[in-house]
Amino acid sequence: MEVFRCPQNPIIKPDDIKPSREDFEVIGVFNPAVARFDNEVILLLRVAERPVSNKPGTVLAAVYDTAKAQVVLKEFSRKDSTVDFSDPRLIITPSQTYLTSISHLRLARSTDGIHFDIDDCPAIFPGSDYESFGIEDARITAVDSTYYISYVGVSAFGITTCLISTRDFKFFSRQGVIFCPDNKDVVIFPGRVRGNYYALHRPVSSLFKKHDIWISQSSDLVHWGNHRYLMGLRAKMWDEMKIGAGAVPFRIEDGWLEIYHGADQNNRYCLGALLLDADEPSKVLARSKVPILEPEAEYEQKGFFGNVVFSCGLLAEEEKLKIYYGAADATVCYAEIPLKDCLRTLDFSKADSH
Amino acid sequence: MEVFRCPQNPIIKPDDIKPSREDFEVIGVFNPAVARFDNEVILLLRVAERPVSNKPGTVLAAVYDTAKAQVVLKEFSRKDSTVDFSDPRLIITPSQTYLTSISHLRLARSTDGIHFDIDDCPAIFPGSDYESFGIEDARITAVDSTYYISYVGVSAFGITTCLISTRDFKFFSRQGVIFCPDNKDVVIFPGRVRGNYYALHRPVSSLFKKHDIWISQSSDLVHWGNHRYLMGLRAKMWDEMKIGAGAVPFRIEDGWLEIYHGADQNNRYCLGALLLDADEPSKVLARSKVPILEPEAEYEQKGFFGNVVFSCGLLAEEEKLKIYYGAADATVCYAEIPLKDCLRTLDFSKADSH
Repeated sequence: MEVFRCPQNPIIKPDDIKPSREDFEVIGVFNPAVARFDNEVILLLRVAERPVSNKPGTVLAAVYDTAKAQVVLKEFSRKDSTVDFSDPRLIITPSQTYLTSISHLRLARSTDGIHFDIDDCPAIFPGSDYESFGIEDARITAVDSTYYISYVGVSAFGITTCLISTRDFKFFSRQGVIFCPDNKDVVIFPGRVRGNYYALHRPVSSLFKKHDIWISQSSDLVHWGNHRYLMGLRAKMWDEMKIGAGAVPFRIEDGWLEIYHGADQNNRYCLGALLLDADEPSKVLARSKVPILEPEAEYEQKGFFGNVVFSCGLLAEEEKLKIYYGAADATVCYAEIPLKDCLRTLDFSKADSH
Repeated sequence: MEVFRCPQNPIIKPDDIKPSREDFEVIGVFNPAVARFDNEVILLLRVAERPVSNKPGTVLAAVYDTAKAQVVLKEFSRKDSTVDFSDPRLIITPSQTYLTSISHLRLARSTDGIHFDIDDCPAIFPGSDYESFGIEDARITAVDSTYYISYVGVSAFGITTCLISTRDFKFFSRQGVIFCPDNKDVVIFPGRVRGNYYALHRPVSSLFKKHDIWISQSSDLVHWGNHRYLMGLRAKMWDEMKIGAGAVPFRIEDGWLEIYHGADQNNRYCLGALLLDADEPSKVLARSKVPILEPEAEYEQKGFFGNVVFSCGLLAEEEKLKIYYGAADATVCYAEIPLKDCLRTLDFSKADSH
C-alpha cells in the first residue's frame, strides 16, 4: 500500500478557524465533505466549538434554541454527583444527555486542494429542532447541477440524518430529516442506478445490538424506502466492532467503490474499501481485507479522540483516491492512494459475515 | 367513561387457534389489525407460537431461515450460564438475542364483529430476512380499494416495520421495509392529507433514551421522508414511560383521532386518544388526560404479560369506537366506547410536554 500523506498535514487545524462567537473556542475541525465546484475544491468542515467557562469547576453546554433562534448556554457543576462527565464528549444528567461541544459546517475553498481559504462565518449552523446539539459529518453528492448535503443532526430527539440542497454553496435549502433516530453515516450515490437513487446508512438496533450498514432507495432523494441490510461487522478483522459508510461512492470499472470506516475492539478507526455491484448496489462484491489507511502518523494517533482516521469525502481523479479525512477528531488531513493499491486490498471470497 | 366490554371477552383465545405446525403450541393471540371488507369484519390476528420441547431443561427458539425457506429450531440448555432467560420473551446469548416465540398473522372473519371464523393456516408468515424472528402487530389502512398492512418484522437485523398490500386478503404483495431498526407502532393514515400520505411511527434513540412518536410523509406509501417529532412522554401521567401509535387514525369533525397506547412506570399499558389537526397532522391539538381503556378485567390483568390493553385497530361507527385489542399479550378482546366519552378525556391545554 503506497500511501502519500501530505507533508503539510494537518492541512487545517483548530487555530485556523475563527470561532462563531467570541465566547467560544474551536476544539476541533475534522471530517470534511468534499466537492469540486467552479474549478475549486470545496470542503464543508465540521467545526466543533466549546463555550469557554470562566467559572472554575463548571462545564457549559451550548444548545441551539429554535424558539429563540439562538444558542443558549447551560451550566453544570463538576461537583454535581448526579451528572456523569466520564465521556469527554458527553454530559449525562438523570433527565437529559448533552454534548460538551456544538458543531457546525464551515466552507473552505482551494485551487490546489491543499491550501484552503476558510470562511470566517459558518455556512450551515444549527437551525432546526433536530440540530439543537449540533450539525456533524456532512457528505456532498452532486446530482446534475445540484449539490445534496447529507449531515448528522443531533438533538434531544436523537441522532438523525438531514438533507440540504444547494446550487451555489451560498444559498442552502433544508429538506428535513431523511433518516430517523438513531441513524448516521449516510452517503447518497451520485445519480440514479437503473432508475433509482440509492443511499447507504447505519441504523441502530439497541435490542439486537446492531450497527450495520443498510442500503435504501428513493425517487426524489427526500423520501426513502426499500431499506435493506447491506453488511455487518467481521469478527477478528479491522472492522470487527464498528462500521459506517464514509465518502460518497463513485463508479469504477468493476462497480461502485465506497471508502468506509471500521473500528476494532481498541476503538482504532481505519479506512477500507467496499465494492458494490454496478447495477444492483445492494450486492456486496468485495471488502478490504486490510485497511487502506490507518492511524499511524502522530496527528492521527493523538488528538481529541486518538487513533482515528475518518473520511466523509474524497476526489477520485487521475487513478488516485485524494482523501480528505479527520485525524483524531481534531484536524483535517489529506492523503493520496493509488486506486490500484486500494483495489488490491479487496477480498472477493467472503464479502460479508452475514 | 362508559366502556362496554363484550360479555364474551376474550372473544378469541389461544385454544381457538390451530397451530401452524404440529410441534408448535399457540401461546398467544392478540393485537389484531381490523378492517371492514365485503360486509365482514376482518381481523389479522397476531398468533404467537412456541416450539414444544420434549427434552426437559431445554428451550427451543423457532427461526425462519430464508435460504431454506422454512422454520428451523435452535436448542438452548437452561443450565447454560452464558444464556440469559430472565425475560420470558427473550433468549439472550453472548452473540445473539432470540425470541422465545415466533408470531405470524392469521385471518379471521365475522359478520357480527364478535363471533369470528378463524383460518386454519397463516395468512402472512415470516418470509424475508427481516422477519426471521416473526411478524407482529399489524395495522390495516384502506386507501382507495387497496389495503396496506404495516407490520413489525423482527430479526437479528433489528425491529423494522414492513409493508404488504392486498386487494382481496388472499394475495399479499410484500413492499419491503418502510422504517429502519428499531422502529414499530407504525400507523398509516387512510388517504392523502393536502396531497401527502402520513404515518405515525416510533423510532428509538438509544443514546438519548428516546421512544417518541414521530410523523412522516410519503407520496407512494413505500418511500417516507420529512420525518418529524410529534409527541413524547408526559411525566407523572398514564403515558409517562412508553407511548406508541395504536389504531389507524380516522377523521372526526375536529381533526384526526388516533387511539394510542401508553404505559406508566409499573408497565401498565392503557389506551388514550390523541387529536391531530385536520389539515396539518403534525400538529397535536389534544391528548387524553386519563385513559379511555385500562386493564381492569381479569383477562386484561393476567396473561402472558399482565396489565396490558393494546390496540392495533378499531372501527369508528355509529358514534362509537368499536375497539379490538390485545389483553395481557394473550387474547383478543372487544370493547365499545361512545365517541363523545372518548373526546371528553381530551386536554387541549398542554398537548405535549415538549
